[in-house]
Amino acid sequence: MSAPATPSPAPAISRFPVPALPDLPDDLRERILAVQEKAGFVPNVFLALAHRPDELRAFLAYHDALLLKEGGLTKGEREMVIVATSGVNRCLYCVVAHGAILRVYEKKPLLADQLATNHRKADISPRQRAMLDFAMKVCRHADEIEESDYEALRAHGFTDEDAWDIGAITAFFGLSNRMANLMALRPNDEFYLMGRVPRQK
Amino acid sequence: MSAPATPSPAPAISRFPVPALPDLPDDLRERILAVQEKAGFVPNVFLALAHRPDELRAFLAYHDALLLKEGGLTKGEREMVIVATSGVNRCLYCVVAHGAILRVYEKKPLLADQLATNHRKADISPRQRAMLDFAMKVCRHADEIEESDYEALRAHGFTDEDAWDIGAITAFFGLSNRMANLMALRPNDEFYLMGRVPRQK
Amino acid sequence: MSAPATPSPAPAISRFPVPALPDLPDDLRERILAVQEKAGFVPNVFLALAHRPDELRAFLAYHDALLLKEGGLTKGEREMVIVATSGVNRCLYCVVAHGAILRVYEKKPLLADQLATNHRKADISPRQRAMLDFAMKVCRHADEIEESDYEALRAHGFTDEDAWDIGAITAFFGLSNRMANLMALRPNDEFYLMGRVPRQK
Amino acid sequence: MSAPATPSPAPAISRFPVPALPDLPDDLRERILAVQEKAGFVPNVFLALAHRPDELRAFLAYHDALLLKEGGLTKGEREMVIVATSGVNRCLYCVVAHGAILRVYEKKPLLADQLATNHRKADISPRQRAMLDFAMKVCRHADEIEESDYEALRAHGFTDEDAWDIGAITAFFGLSNRMANLMALRPNDEFYLMGRVPRQK
Amino acid sequence: MSAPATPSPAPAISRFPVPALPDLPDDLRERILAVQEKAGFVPNVFLALAHRPDELRAFLAYHDALLLKEGGLTKGEREMVIVATSGVNRCLYCVVAHGAILRVYEKKPLLADQLATNHRKADISPRQRAMLDFAMKVCRHADEIEESDYEALRAHGFTDEDAWDIGAITAFFGLSNRMANLMALRPNDEFYLMGRVPRQK
Amino acid sequence: MSAPATPSPAPAISRFPVPALPDLPDDLRERILAVQEKAGFVPNVFLALAHRPDELRAFLAYHDALLLKEGGLTKGEREMVIVATSGVNRCLYCVVAHGAILRVYEKKPLLADQLATNHRKADISPRQRAMLDFAMKVCRHADEIEESDYEALRAHGFTDEDAWDIGAITAFFGLSNRMANLMALRPNDEFYLMGRVPRQK
Repeated sequence: MSAPATPSPAPAISRFPVPALPDLPDDLRERILAVQEKAGFVPNVFLALAHRPDELRAFLAYHDALLLKEGGLTKGEREMVIVATSGVNRCLYCVVAHGAILRVYEKKPLLADQLATNHRKADISPRQRAMLDFAMKVCRHADEIEESDYEALRAHGFTDEDAWDIGAITAFFGLSNRMANLMALRPNDEFYLMGRVPRQK
Repeated sequence: MSAPATPSPAPAISRFPVPALPDLPDDLRERILAVQEKAGFVPNVFLALAHRPDELRAFLAYHDALLLKEGGLTKGEREMVIVATSGVNRCLYCVVAHGAILRVYEKKPLLADQLATNHRKADISPRQRAMLDFAMKVCRHADEIEESDYEALRAHGFTDEDAWDIGAITAFFGLSNRMANLMALRPNDEFYLMGRVPRQK
Repeated sequence: MSAPATPSPAPAISRFPVPALPDLPDDLRERILAVQEKAGFVPNVFLALAHRPDELRAFLAYHDALLLKEGGLTKGEREMVIVATSGVNRCLYCVVAHGAILRVYEKKPLLADQLATNHRKADISPRQRAMLDFAMKVCRHADEIEESDYEALRAHGFTDEDAWDIGAITAFFGLSNRMANLMALRPNDEFYLMGRVPRQK
Repeated sequence: MSAPATPSPAPAISRFPVPALPDLPDDLRERILAVQEKAGFVPNVFLALAHRPDELRAFLAYHDALLLKEGGLTKGEREMVIVATSGVNRCLYCVVAHGAILRVYEKKPLLADQLATNHRKADISPRQRAMLDFAMKVCRHADEIEESDYEALRAHGFTDEDAWDIGAITAFFGLSNRMANLMALRPNDEFYLMGRVPRQK
Repeated sequence: MSAPATPSPAPAISRFPVPALPDLPDDLRERILAVQEKAGFVPNVFLALAHRPDELRAFLAYHDALLLKEGGLTKGEREMVIVATSGVNRCLYCVVAHGAILRVYEKKPLLADQLATNHRKADISPRQRAMLDFAMKVCRHADEIEESDYEALRAHGFTDEDAWDIGAITAFFGLSNRMANLMALRPNDEFYLMGRVPRQK
Repeated sequence: MSAPATPSPAPAISRFPVPALPDLPDDLRERILAVQEKAGFVPNVFLALAHRPDELRAFLAYHDALLLKEGGLTKGEREMVIVATSGVNRCLYCVVAHGAILRVYEKKPLLADQLATNHRKADISPRQRAMLDFAMKVCRHADEIEESDYEALRAHGFTDEDAWDIGAITAFFGLSNRMANLMALRPNDEFYLMGRVPRQK
């Protein structure tokens, strides 16, 4: 007979100390409260990284610079890059959290699981497939990136600026994935179901 | 602007011909109808493999021999082995279909996503972790299996028969994962949500 | 001075219990006796897997479904797939046992050693080389199989049904290789020499 | 006879557009001028990343948060982590630029080449070796980080905060290495010789 | 139906020009004739490498320095290292030719196939297993060799000089394997059967 | 605070015994003295390998046969192959020693660091890039060398004899790299700076 897993009632969200919201610097607390207001809960990455306020500020600035900017990739496509990258890097937090965001953005409940498992089997366009092939090369073999990789993107209408976007998002989430695995960062339970059940609106 | 993915209304479930249910040999049709009655739908693997009735019969016989037998592993633990194996083998069908079965068996809506992404971060017992470490070695480096791997299992109370079960399930789903990737087998949409929403409690 | 290896007089054929022939269920005993009559000895895989009669039955059914069926691959070519796959998976039993069968079928005493070591250096036709390239991809990177892999086969006259045969044989022996390594299955001494000495008949 | 390489007189420092210093936002131009004053030249990474001012700001903020903070690692040790990481990631810019900084900090002209090639053969203390073993695991297998990796650090007197520092520097330069390879970022010629010739002694 | 392989009656032994024996420098011709007298045929490696007489002389000098010297490894054990190394490097010539020599030396017809496929499953002593584990590490990860690898050898009675022998034989046959694969060096047919049939007993 | 590395005043140049120059056989001592006269110091590889005089003689003969012969590769190009190979094999001695020789031959102070880190980012001609791509394949996947690899060389004007040179230098330094890592061979301090400072011109 097997011993059942008995996770503690409230599993740790990080193997490092996690600050309480009231103890945070004002700017971070305000940002986090704004997220909470919008999402209905505080994604654990905010609290876990807030153990180091300066790093969290830089992390958020980098995140915003890549994900809030204008550009040739839709918001949904940027999340596709994140989910596929996080799947290859085997990062539970980012697969689950950004999988949720992707489902919400694209209104496709199946897409995140497809991309996290094997982007070759996902319901995406050939252009998006080329985008993810480029991302996977940056993720795993950035030292082997050549002009021919850029040409493959151009064949699908991507510009060099789009290539930078794809590569930079992949590189930034390579950092994020490594930090999450380092911290044993636990995804909020809420993420797992988000965007899976189509809303009746 | 990116071209949106426009999957055809009814995407193919396999890149090979898929027989119609009425055209199947009686024994297979009956088995499939029984599954349909229980699950509410026909899992695509049945129809896709039915392109080769003899192979499907052998596949089901092997499946049943490993998953319906008595033994030291619970039904849920066997599915844990399958989901972790399928994640490493990057097999979309098995991750999604057996992830659903695992959620239903274990009544833990988060477990399948955890195991498919990184079994080291899953809410499982140390014993189950040892089980999956053994499975991952059979999956990726079966040629390096040594007596010390069996000893690591025994330290958690597993017998040699349990080790066979773990290894055989891993090996069988290695076959299954390769076939599914070969066929580009598409998971039924129904699987993605199964077991995610806790019933009425 | 080095200590010589002194293997016990009758080395174990499996690290798991091996049933005696008389103790087996009738159907399995009869099948095994038929093999023995034909081959002159009982291949160890039968006895080792007979520790689990239901699994052995399924194994044999799968084996027969793939290797006894009609199709575009000759019996010898199917064994080529098996030997090359088993070489890559580093499975001693299957390299030695199926190497013997391959030599007998093809009447080429050198072919098995060539394929087990490096299929690129074997005395095979370009068509057979394409067959084995496809098999090696299924064996090692089934998640990356694409339509272009099927096209490469078609360029050599293979149909989609042939592709299924190649892929399914590779997948099934991936299972077989993992089980043999798990059991530390020992090849019968008889296999090593079979088909190496051309018979004067 | 071989065709000699004839690099253009002024090889591009990035495959993306590089802004002129006067065109930069004030804050970035001032920061860069301060670096130039101190170093005697502008490291190419500043100009190349300045193509995206918001990203450069975030990059510098993250960099400063990790490298200017107090902590258990000396400045030289942080550069050791960077050089070893960049060697494994095969990033020319970071190997050359941070190799120079490491030589200057540690006043050991040989250390950077040793670490970039094989950290196991470098003139470092056992404690520093443990630090780099942890960094290499975060760099290549962050998904496999376990408590035992933290224990190995503790055996050398490292705290959990030190572990965060090591892991975060590794993760951040994994981002930096990917961006530099993406941009084909060219190291300034000045870096190659810095710190190699011991001053006046 | 598959196209049968129809190798030319006398397949090339190398993809490079192969000199005729009479055209060779005297010293090499004499050495080769001596080998021919002893073995009954000229191993193809002699003729293929004789395309570059100076390289062949150096090759033979290195070979003799490692394999004819006194030392803690028996002649058979040195061939075990060669066969296991050549298996991992997937070098057909060396697996077949040195497999033959190993069978002759050790009078164990099964040993070469075991070692070429998976040294963990071979009929060897624990001491020989340790020898091959060290060799496999030099073969695949020489950059990671540490004092602990030497300690593992010492636990089985190997001296540092023995370790040098094991490592140097592995390194030299790494060179040999690469050259044979580069030349597409074909093993003499005679090797395949040598030492497989026990003489008169 | 971290414990500083305190290397012993004269670190060992090899983990094996190193003979004194006067104790060497005459031929080796004379060769070494000649090198010393030319270079100003005795490269450590001579002394370390002299622990086994016969092996050192064979090593030098092989080295000379490949590096002193006429051929389509310049001396500088041969060193490029060596440095790139040694970088991939993570061999500190050869990266540092042959990096120095390369700088001296090519009078390009930056080239060695570029090639040791990532040959794709080096200031070399397309022809030299093709040469190194071939070398890298021999270094890492010699078993996969095919005629198409030779064709890629021919497209840049390389003959088959050039291909042999490239492959043989790569293979020989694969041996050299493994021996250096086995011995923990320490590069002479002199090499690190050689060829970095352009002479007064």
